[in-house]
Amino acid sequence: MSLPGYNRYLSNDSDEENDSIEILQRPHYKYHRYSLDLPGIMTKEQQTQIGVAGPKLIVAMVGLPARGKSYIVKKLRRYLTWLQYETKIFNVGNLRRNTAQLIKNGTAPNNHSHSFFDPNNEYAKNVRDQLAMDSLDELIYWLKTGGRVGIHDATNSTIARRKKILERCQRENNFKVLFIESICDDKEVLESNMRLKLSGPDYKNVDPEEALDDFRRRVANYERAYETIGEEEEKTDVEYCKLINVGKKIIAHNIKGYLSGQCIFYLMNLNLIDRQIWLTRHGESADNVSGRIGGDSSLSEKGRKFAACLSRFVHAQKMLFRQKQLENYREKIGSSTPPPEPPERNFLVWTSMLKRTIETVESLDPKEFDIMHIRFLNEIYAGRCEGKTYQEIEQSYPEEFNARKNNKLYYRYPGMGGESYLDVIHRVNPLIIELERMTDNILVVTHRVVLRIILAYFLDVEKEKVPDMDVPLHTLYCLQPKAYGSELTKWKYDDEQDQFFQIE
Amino acid sequence: MSLPGYNRYLSNDSDEENDSIEILQRPHYKYHRYSLDLPGIMTKEQQTQIGVAGPKLIVAMVGLPARGKSYIVKKLRRYLTWLQYETKIFNVGNLRRNTAQLIKNGTAPNNHSHSFFDPNNEYAKNVRDQLAMDSLDELIYWLKTGGRVGIHDATNSTIARRKKILERCQRENNFKVLFIESICDDKEVLESNMRLKLSGPDYKNVDPEEALDDFRRRVANYERAYETIGEEEEKTDVEYCKLINVGKKIIAHNIKGYLSGQCIFYLMNLNLIDRQIWLTRHGESADNVSGRIGGDSSLSEKGRKFAACLSRFVHAQKMLFRQKQLENYREKIGSSTPPPEPPERNFLVWTSMLKRTIETVESLDPKEFDIMHIRFLNEIYAGRCEGKTYQEIEQSYPEEFNARKNNKLYYRYPGMGGESYLDVIHRVNPLIIELERMTDNILVVTHRVVLRIILAYFLDVEKEKVPDMDVPLHTLYCLQPKAYGSELTKWKYDDEQDQFFQIE
Repeated sequence: MSLPGYNRYLSNDSDEENDSIEILQRPHYKYHRYSLDLPGIMTKEQQTQIGVAGPKLIVAMVGLPARGKSYIVKKLRRYLTWLQYETKIFNVGNLRRNTAQLIKNGTAPNNHSHSFFDPNNEYAKNVRDQLAMDSLDELIYWLKTGGRVGIHDATNSTIARRKKILERCQRENNFKVLFIESICDDKEVLESNMRLKLSGPDYKNVDPEEALDDFRRRVANYERAYETIGEEEEKTDVEYCKLINVGKKIIAHNIKGYLSGQCIFYLMNLNLIDRQIWLTRHGESADNVSGRIGGDSSLSEKGRKFAACLSRFVHAQKMLFRQKQLENYREKIGSSTPPPEPPERNFLVWTSMLKRTIETVESLDPKEFDIMHIRFLNEIYAGRCEGKTYQEIEQSYPEEFNARKNNKLYYRYPGMGGESYLDVIHRVNPLIIELERMTDNILVVTHRVVLRIILAYFLDVEKEKVPDMDVPLHTLYCLQPKAYGSELTKWKYDDEQDQFFQIE
Repeated sequence: MSLPGYNRYLSNDSDEENDSIEILQRPHYKYHRYSLDLPGIMTKEQQTQIGVAGPKLIVAMVGLPARGKSYIVKKLRRYLTWLQYETKIFNVGNLRRNTAQLIKNGTAPNNHSHSFFDPNNEYAKNVRDQLAMDSLDELIYWLKTGGRVGIHDATNSTIARRKKILERCQRENNFKVLFIESICDDKEVLESNMRLKLSGPDYKNVDPEEALDDFRRRVANYERAYETIGEEEEKTDVEYCKLINVGKKIIAHNIKGYLSGQCIFYLMNLNLIDRQIWLTRHGESADNVSGRIGGDSSLSEKGRKFAACLSRFVHAQKMLFRQKQLENYREKIGSSTPPPEPPERNFLVWTSMLKRTIETVESLDPKEFDIMHIRFLNEIYAGRCEGKTYQEIEQSYPEEFNARKNNKLYYRYPGMGGESYLDVIHRVNPLIIELERMTDNILVVTHRVVLRIILAYFLDVEKEKVPDMDVPLHTLYCLQPKAYGSELTKWKYDDEQDQFFQIE
């Protein structure tokens, strides 16, 4: 992967002007690693590429079908990718289906009905083992050629299978294996997971009842042979984590690596509660009007009008959410005896510490909303370029202007405290964890770069595209986290009519 | 607690000069909470005091004697206090001993030999129950009068006792209870924990053999009645965490709060491996010579001399550590058959991204040391005051100068990006977790304020004293984390003799 302008990211900050060329050529820095990768994940190899250096991690999933493995795997990939670790999922089911396609006319079983998963079906068992190991080989090859975290998405449901995985990985240098087992005994979640499977690739064009029946038998076959991770594997110091009922209970054993710890902390904090995350930029500011970046100006008149309307709109949305919550509750309970109402969800409001976001929430009632101003939501700090227009930057610091144009993601603004997108990602990371953890509704009022970065996480935007995401002023994003991803709606403030319209 | 200058901390950053008075009087900000408390821990109360607002947390310990409860409790208190949460330990054993002292001449048993802990001793059981609940009442009173996290340090070894604790806490508004159970079945650790107890207050002036025998019987008495946290408590959604063998295995159930999650993440990352954390500031820089704060100047000649000597010294210390490691290993193993040598510990070197720290490690061999430059180790950012002398600040911004003098801990430098000590604490927090987690040796080369903050964590310095800690240039601190705290040695560079001398 070629990263133009990447070297700029490697340079240290400096207050001298026009130093970027000099720094690029400074030879005695070449052995050092400048990195935003948090510490502890780097090894002795003298690599600098972000998200690639450091020990390779194999996350091997364990769990019966329909236990939420895909949910975990997708979330984890999205989070780690967003943190700039090269991460990829290797799904054994897909490989099985592709292989089945290839050998359709051979002697191998050409369909994967439940009997293929019968532990007594020796032939099928060997095929399944082979498939799992093939996909592991593929994963290892990918890690060796640049990947950082490979996720082995398979059932890996026996001690013997997991032993094979460990043995295979121990043949490699500096590879760590973390097993993540997903257990679910919540009947409701299980049933809904199973029904979700029926719309999957294994049951295309199959009668739903028949499909469900087959799938249940497949699960029963797995269950017969299933061995949960436990004492046997603790004897050999296996690193593992069990997630029981979507993070309600967690068992972690022998977790050692920095990255493993981060993965588990992230997974510990997930929840599936129905809620809304509203995101927007501040109202138009004086600096927006004059085209200056950074700074700490107040809202323009237009911005103040937006802020006032935003308050009314958010208040109405809060009432609407409450209304729906009560409707759902009554539906579920039935109305024979009037049940006590569930408490209303808190509604948090977070802004940055800069005037333009604080003024944007100024007219929200602090008795109704829980308002906080957080430094971590401040705009990217442009160092020497603060308060300048892009034109002025081009004139004063042409090298900076071009370096930024060539690679906005890795580019770091010059001067003390100047930040890059990657700096901001690390700064915002605790807030992402917090957004995942909490069950309240929230409005986040922040700035262009920070908003791009938060949206990139929720909407899984490719990293190269993040710096060019279009996030205009006076636009409101509403995310509703679901098991399969985040549902997005988008609202635009209409200045003339002084109200919001849904545009997506 | 009166916090002069605290309001300055509440103000938002601004690039306008002389705005601090105006901000202090701005009335319409009064309902908003400006805080470095990470989000999610604030409630609807309109409080702003740091570390006090938000739901109260009661951490109730569970575990047999000599299972490392004290270790956990002390570490947790130190960490939370450092993060600026008001935290206090309420130890039932101390209360028991004090009470025994008071009733020494009454009919109550006046010594606490093992029979006092016999579960069939009804009278003693009632006294123990009463003591536990009394200390809980004390804890709750403290939380209500300003505390944030109260740690109930007791055995709390039965379901009935824990139920009582929950019932008592539910009578309060917005109090959360997190049980932390410490389990240890590592024979070696247990034996050494027990021997540690014998030097404790219960066995003053008692024959060691007799004491150990009594203590073993006390533990046996507890064991007879001991009920580990489990299914019974999961039914009622109790929040708990079990730590097995100092974090080797962790079970967490129904963890919901932000603060609980942070506690558990912290405890997950502890280890007791023998290692060295070396800390120092950069060598003297050009700005040091001219008395300017912040900036990004290079080393002075004196600074370069220090840097060269530091490299030699650290290299020698690395060899010394290795030598001791091998000696210990040989002693343990015996020398009948030559055992394979244990691998040498990695030696990491972290610096900030500023020239003066990078240049300080310039002559370390990157093949021998794992060198990284991390933004989070940068010096406190002085905003508008960067590159100025204190005299210049006093002249240009007299209000700032005085506000800082009045409260250095809460004072935030003016201007975009300007930081306070508290900002730096939150920025450095992931590095502290990483220092706890890792098992490598390390040299951290950073700056005055960051070094104060790191040392404050390890040496448990009272927060009011942190900004005035004396951390001169060309001084090296070596911390060796132990079960009871961190062992500190201190080394001073002698410019004339061009070598380091141990001064503490």
